[in-house]
Amino acid sequence: MAKNIVKTEYYKIDKKITFESGVEFGPITVAYETYGKLNDAKDNAILVIHALTGDAHAAGYHSENDKKAGWWDNMIGDGKAFDTSKYFVVSSNILGGCSGTTGPSSINPETGKPYGLSFPVFTIEDTVKIQKELLDYLGINSLYAVAGGSMGGMQAMQFVMSYPDMVKSAILIATTSRLSPQGIAFNAVGRNSIISDPNWNNGEYYDKENKPDRGLSTARMIGHITYLCEEAMYNKFGRKLQDKDHYDFHFDVDFQVESYLQHQGQIFVDRFDANSYLYITKAVDYYDPATKYGSLQNAFKPSDAKYLIISFDSDWLFPSVQSKEIVNTLMNLGKDVSYCEIKSPCGHDAFLLEYDVQSKIVKSFLDNHMTEKCNE
Amino acid sequence: MAKNIVKTEYYKIDKKITFESGVEFGPITVAYETYGKLNDAKDNAILVIHALTGDAHAAGYHSENDKKAGWWDNMIGDGKAFDTSKYFVVSSNILGGCSGTTGPSSINPETGKPYGLSFPVFTIEDTVKIQKELLDYLGINSLYAVAGGSMGGMQAMQFVMSYPDMVKSAILIATTSRLSPQGIAFNAVGRNSIISDPNWNNGEYYDKENKPDRGLSTARMIGHITYLCEEAMYNKFGRKLQDKDHYDFHFDVDFQVESYLQHQGQIFVDRFDANSYLYITKAVDYYDPATKYGSLQNAFKPSDAKYLIISFDSDWLFPSVQSKEIVNTLMNLGKDVSYCEIKSPCGHDAFLLEYDVQSKIVKSFLDNHMTEKCNE
Repeated sequence: MAKNIVKTEYYKIDKKITFESGVEFGPITVAYETYGKLNDAKDNAILVIHALTGDAHAAGYHSENDKKAGWWDNMIGDGKAFDTSKYFVVSSNILGGCSGTTGPSSINPETGKPYGLSFPVFTIEDTVKIQKELLDYLGINSLYAVAGGSMGGMQAMQFVMSYPDMVKSAILIATTSRLSPQGIAFNAVGRNSIISDPNWNNGEYYDKENKPDRGLSTARMIGHITYLCEEAMYNKFGRKLQDKDHYDFHFDVDFQVESYLQHQGQIFVDRFDANSYLYITKAVDYYDPATKYGSLQNAFKPSDAKYLIISFDSDWLFPSVQSKEIVNTLMNLGKDVSYCEIKSPCGHDAFLLEYDVQSKIVKSFLDNHMTEKCNE
Repeated sequence: MAKNIVKTEYYKIDKKITFESGVEFGPITVAYETYGKLNDAKDNAILVIHALTGDAHAAGYHSENDKKAGWWDNMIGDGKAFDTSKYFVVSSNILGGCSGTTGPSSINPETGKPYGLSFPVFTIEDTVKIQKELLDYLGINSLYAVAGGSMGGMQAMQFVMSYPDMVKSAILIATTSRLSPQGIAFNAVGRNSIISDPNWNNGEYYDKENKPDRGLSTARMIGHITYLCEEAMYNKFGRKLQDKDHYDFHFDVDFQVESYLQHQGQIFVDRFDANSYLYITKAVDYYDPATKYGSLQNAFKPSDAKYLIISFDSDWLFPSVQSKEIVNTLMNLGKDVSYCEIKSPCGHDAFLLEYDVQSKIVKSFLDNHMTEKCNE
């Protein structure tokens, strides 16, 4: 079968946007992709939002030779959960990212140099504001659905809170309405690791030969531990040694799990910017609509959207209890809400991996049949 | 009340010791402290073994002005769980440590320089062998008990396996017979953080102005996240901000949990050696008696010691299920074993903090009354 070839496009928001901090910032270029066709009524658009280190490329391939499909390709496409024969799916790179949307590694037109730390600290609300600008540009005034996993789920729920009349439904997967102190702690240690790398150089490393790769790599390794659960680690690695039968009695890699993490750290630095990692994790730490709106009820109250909440039983980073808090809030408000906890050995990463069960639930929800049975 | 003043003493093992790797190494100086008196029958000695970053100073104070008591002072003393009016308690700094016992920061008498990475990689079995040398020197041929928490518990159980006829009882607290892949992963990332610090300089930094403090500090921060449980973090910090009412929108510390971790990292580098951290965590990763002896049953079989196993329900680093595995093994062997899971919101750190319940259980066990009721 021929590959589904897609292209990243760019929209320049050629004005200043007021951030939650009060800072006015612009212009901002947004990298985005679309899949499927917007119908004449313009009522079949679905905004899909990526997680911490994702990008606009959610589905398809960039060329016939491209070996890697978009990050949610198993969910988006003809006949898939986000069925592109019915829906018009929009995906964009987050504000502050490093995959096409303006971020700290972008050139400041006023100085001709990368922003670095002069890029303003932004919030989840700001990232959603940028998505809204993109939708305006695309002529989309109403969303059939907004969907995201992990940090993408935070943005999806914030989209409902920021633009309550615009959203028909929201799909919030493996997410939380605020990070636990443990979650903040993991992010803080990751940032500390980057900032401690002498090559970070207060964020000014773009023209240097050596970048803060070691710090960023350690941050990614910490992240990966939290994305897997203990069961997943046992299944994947156990205590198996890497390419050897006996301990080596030195400090090279002994165990497969060490090798895996080092590899994940090393490949990450080739595709991600250390400053972007700082900014985006900070936005995640800051996210807390219950405090901002007075309560989570207040935050969700204005919208009449339908909700699908999905969590995974082995996710200890954003555990089910945090999803249930959202579900309970919505039920107390009398909103239309479906909730599924999917059994999975994949930990937090399940939202990217468990597409079989997840697809059925999402597809059914989008086709307006509420899921009646879970975990089958 | 006058402070209980104690003194660290030193014993030099003036010969070569054969390590598990096959390397012969010596001389080795052991830093140790003792509390109470060895009776004439020499049958009241208890060996207490510290955890990852502990030292020989388990109880009492080093001077009248000393503000900080030994790390298990709430458990060791006159009338306490390890009652020094009855028992002679011995505590020593681990092989490879940096608090008096020979380690990578010690001077190699053959070169006049610190060992650095020329120090041999050692195992938990090796650390126990050094403890045995110390006991021989002190004239102790029989232990009333051997006790330890966390990595100290690994050593305590290895002591029973290495010297099965020497031990009357063993107290294994918040420990495991082998690290999970997740545990290895956290240690590996901590080591990676140290090794990635340019100041580490392949382990040769002792004569340099700048030490690998940043890498070691990050490693310690990672460790601290695993020592606390989520509940403890909620109770201690929640999402409370540090000395401010609003977000600062920059990359300084915002949350109390960030401030706490940074502080823990910073004070750690003043008392601990980065190379010691590498060696000791490697020994912990390697520990796996079930593989070494063919099975955990085989490993425990030769000894007729009585056992007390304690775990904490909120400990996710060395969770109760790992203690229960040891308990089941011992029960299948028909050994005399008591097990308590203590309810605690303190996570892994509970073995240092929950002294009230823990004291009663340990005291009762040592006084030969098996604990009949837990969790009261």
